[in-house]
Amino acid sequence: MNTFPLNAWYACAYDVEVKNELLARTVCKQKLVMYRKLDGTVAILEDACWHRLLPLSKGRLNGDEVTCGYHGLVYNAGGRCTHMPSQETINPSACVRSYPVVEKHRFVWVWPGEAALADPKGVPDMHWNDDPAWAGDGKMIRVNCDYRLVLDNLMDLTHETFVHGSSIGQAAVAEAPFVATHGDKTATVTRWMENIEAPPFWAGQIRRANGYQGAVDRWQIIKFEAPATISIDVGVAPAGSGAVPKDGHSSDRGQGVNGFVLNTITPETDGTCLYFWSFARNYLLHDQRLTHELREGVASIFREDELILEAQQQAIDDHPGYSFYNLNIDAGSMWMRRLIDKMIANEAGGAPTNRVIPLRISA
Amino acid sequence: MNTFPLNAWYACAYDVEVKNELLARTVCKQKLVMYRKLDGTVAILEDACWHRLLPLSKGRLNGDEVTCGYHGLVYNAGGRCTHMPSQETINPSACVRSYPVVEKHRFVWVWPGEAALADPKGVPDMHWNDDPAWAGDGKMIRVNCDYRLVLDNLMDLTHETFVHGSSIGQAAVAEAPFVATHGDKTATVTRWMENIEAPPFWAGQIRRANGYQGAVDRWQIIKFEAPATISIDVGVAPAGSGAVPKDGHSSDRGQGVNGFVLNTITPETDGTCLYFWSFARNYLLHDQRLTHELREGVASIFREDELILEAQQQAIDDHPGYSFYNLNIDAGSMWMRRLIDKMIANEAGGAPTNRVIPLRISA
Amino acid sequence: MNTFPLNAWYACAYDVEVKNELLARTVCKQKLVMYRKLDGTVAILEDACWHRLLPLSKGRLNGDEVTCGYHGLVYNAGGRCTHMPSQETINPSACVRSYPVVEKHRFVWVWPGEAALADPKGVPDMHWNDDPAWAGDGKMIRVNCDYRLVLDNLMDLTHETFVHGSSIGQAAVAEAPFVATHGDKTATVTRWMENIEAPPFWAGQIRRANGYQGAVDRWQIIKFEAPATISIDVGVAPAGSGAVPKDGHSSDRGQGVNGFVLNTITPETDGTCLYFWSFARNYLLHDQRLTHELREGVASIFREDELILEAQQQAIDDHPGYSFYNLNIDAGSMWMRRLIDKMIANEAGGAPTNRVIPLRISA
Repeated sequence: MNTFPLNAWYACAYDVEVKNELLARTVCKQKLVMYRKLDGTVAILEDACWHRLLPLSKGRLNGDEVTCGYHGLVYNAGGRCTHMPSQETINPSACVRSYPVVEKHRFVWVWPGEAALADPKGVPDMHWNDDPAWAGDGKMIRVNCDYRLVLDNLMDLTHETFVHGSSIGQAAVAEAPFVATHGDKTATVTRWMENIEAPPFWAGQIRRANGYQGAVDRWQIIKFEAPATISIDVGVAPAGSGAVPKDGHSSDRGQGVNGFVLNTITPETDGTCLYFWSFARNYLLHDQRLTHELREGVASIFREDELILEAQQQAIDDHPGYSFYNLNIDAGSMWMRRLIDKMIANEAGGAPTNRVIPLRISA
Repeated sequence: MNTFPLNAWYACAYDVEVKNELLARTVCKQKLVMYRKLDGTVAILEDACWHRLLPLSKGRLNGDEVTCGYHGLVYNAGGRCTHMPSQETINPSACVRSYPVVEKHRFVWVWPGEAALADPKGVPDMHWNDDPAWAGDGKMIRVNCDYRLVLDNLMDLTHETFVHGSSIGQAAVAEAPFVATHGDKTATVTRWMENIEAPPFWAGQIRRANGYQGAVDRWQIIKFEAPATISIDVGVAPAGSGAVPKDGHSSDRGQGVNGFVLNTITPETDGTCLYFWSFARNYLLHDQRLTHELREGVASIFREDELILEAQQQAIDDHPGYSFYNLNIDAGSMWMRRLIDKMIANEAGGAPTNRVIPLRISA
Repeated sequence: MNTFPLNAWYACAYDVEVKNELLARTVCKQKLVMYRKLDGTVAILEDACWHRLLPLSKGRLNGDEVTCGYHGLVYNAGGRCTHMPSQETINPSACVRSYPVVEKHRFVWVWPGEAALADPKGVPDMHWNDDPAWAGDGKMIRVNCDYRLVLDNLMDLTHETFVHGSSIGQAAVAEAPFVATHGDKTATVTRWMENIEAPPFWAGQIRRANGYQGAVDRWQIIKFEAPATISIDVGVAPAGSGAVPKDGHSSDRGQGVNGFVLNTITPETDGTCLYFWSFARNYLLHDQRLTHELREGVASIFREDELILEAQQQAIDDHPGYSFYNLNIDAGSMWMRRLIDKMIANEAGGAPTNRVIPLRISA
């Protein structure tokens, strides 16, 4: 039983990473070789020659065709072998698998499951990445843990208080009430912290954006889109300036600063994942120094998470069969895991059985 | 089946290693976090948060309480959770295991088995470590082998001739007769080498202590205390000066120099151990340079053992099921293993079955 | 089931590597210690003391006898224990295995199987290594792959075009026809490339040897001798000068340059091997600079193979049970594997079952 659904779009590279040269990457335990064709679109093939399994990524790209680096078999972008050494007839079975691919919102997305089910409309919404009303940048890191541990981490930001105390953490995050809701493919956790002192990171942002230095209302609206994408609507506004949607009024964030932490996590193996993230903001759009500073600042914060996540994965490996308890703060993560389990179970054609963290509610 | 008894005191740290900060260590495959409380006593807890298993040693110590570094659950020194984020009611099951602990003879001792059986009177005798009639110091090293291989090594000092030829080894050690005896929890090997040239190490010690440069009587009295402690009474005296207990006379070591090599070896996993040792002497008590020199000198000697022990462990791993032959020199080690096997079997409630080295006597 | 026959001579060292000191090496999963005796012949023993398994290679050699580095048991060159510490009677079972050994054609050969079957006449023919009509030198490298992948590589030189394009590769090698034949213990692949431009390596050799710069006839005659030796007769001669044996004429290579690439690959474990190779030539015999240059040049070429072979082994490990397809170019390799399989099956006393690469012919 896989720990991930196969019939889904997974990010496998940032757009700029894929050039007219061979790039190897593993998604859902499948080794892939990808490259940009002469027409600018991306091709993704199985990274193993049909003949002797040498990774095709060790070979050469000529135009849109890949030549194996061992015996010279040539494959076109559809995976069909077009040349074999020392023989004129090409075996009709000689091909490698090619994968459905979509490029959207600054990522290259691959569909590792049944190709016939791949619908480009199903690519997760990360439009802030190339929407001119937003500015930002991001990175990809490889983390040595089950991709769901990264998702757990993002679905409950209580940990900011303990893991990121010097930047975005503050006691209010751990103690403020929140609301968890869910749909068929999404789960949402909403937390408003009213009239608080801004944590160091946000205090700096709102002061730079519009000079404000007082108490703030702060929000975190975490939205999970199954199986592996989370966008987090974050920001602060002057306390009482109307950002909090209450008393029948909708939210007016006009005096505040707003960012989106965009995350999509791709299972590489059962115990490793590729974590693609970016941070987009709606203020000081043309400040390139700020873009650079935010990218590196967020990278430092995520490095703190990485250490925790890898330690947690090792501890899980050391406690096989451990039955996890859930706290109130785990409500969002529990819905997230239910939605993933449902996708996996649907693929397996049976009931959900892959629940690594049983949904037991703590008293 | 474990390779070690659990109901026993094992050294887990030198006293000075444990401060008011979190220290992680593994004993008998159990991951522990230890720290010194404000009252000076030591607390030892299971090193895994009840909630998501993050090692507590990655968190923070506040006074006597540990805060988990991920979501901020707080535990007291008894292992009980005293705070959870975002909820007022604390799950009654929320606790981590706490361990019986005793600090004695310069070591912190932990009882990894059934807490109700932990009797502080059972801590092995290593009193030379803090007896004002003796002076010395020691170290802890991590060795990549089954802890019993270190014990084997210490129960038969024949190996000094071959492993430590430049310091304490000499042909007399390998060839002198010895006597092996045993009790319910102890095994003893006694070897007297009369009227011999002192090996380089001891020649230097007796000359510095009292100027003597002639032939010596040398002794090695190895005492094993189950399951993992060995004290070795070693020394030389001028030949014929009365140190050898014979002809109805008791031993008079008044003209000699005497040391104790104190060793306690703690299983970490089946294939690794923590080796705590010290060397105490009854001469030149206030010579701090000598204390320093002896600690580093013994450390060099034990480094020679470490290389042999790790090579031996690899060879054992390469020969699964190998049935070992025993020589006359292995008599002490055989009794030692029988006593350990008996403890393991008693815990398992059955007959001894864990004999890695069968007690076959060679012809 | 082993991946190699045991009843065979395998190279375990270059002659100069074995001196009057202990050298450890693994052949067919068996750990060996070897040394040159005072009479100049070589002894090979099991590298594990009978008593506590310490590798004897960690001990000391005194004349022709090995003293174990732990407790001092002594073994003679026949593997018989001749001394034990603290006891006069030596256990009759106290011995380690000794291996049949032959030194021939600059290699030390060991027979890891049944000693009674070891016939020195069966040592593979690598006489070019010490024939005064030939000059050359070689190296040994450890490669992280099944030894048969190295043999596959050598039995089909098509790969030169893709792996070694800057030195010995050229399109003609991949496209020229070849003939594969076999005997009871040998398989041969012969390829003639007539009237071609010499590749960079051979163009340089023939120009240096006799000033020739025009088109050449090139040959590669690959001869496998089961289970693990391949000699490759290679060279070029001026086009049409009579080197190609046709129209009833035998080959006259008098105007050409001829080399032998001599290879014998020794399984170390299932996934690693010791690759011994040398390159001998019949021209410019006294040019020591050329010998040096060729040894390092061929080493660079084999380094290119090593990278491919290790990547291929990893890919095979990632695809357990993969059923390989064979191309026309694999004919020599298929016969080679059949001969190895037959040797393994004969030892197992049954039908061949160890065919990692099934002999399916592609259309």
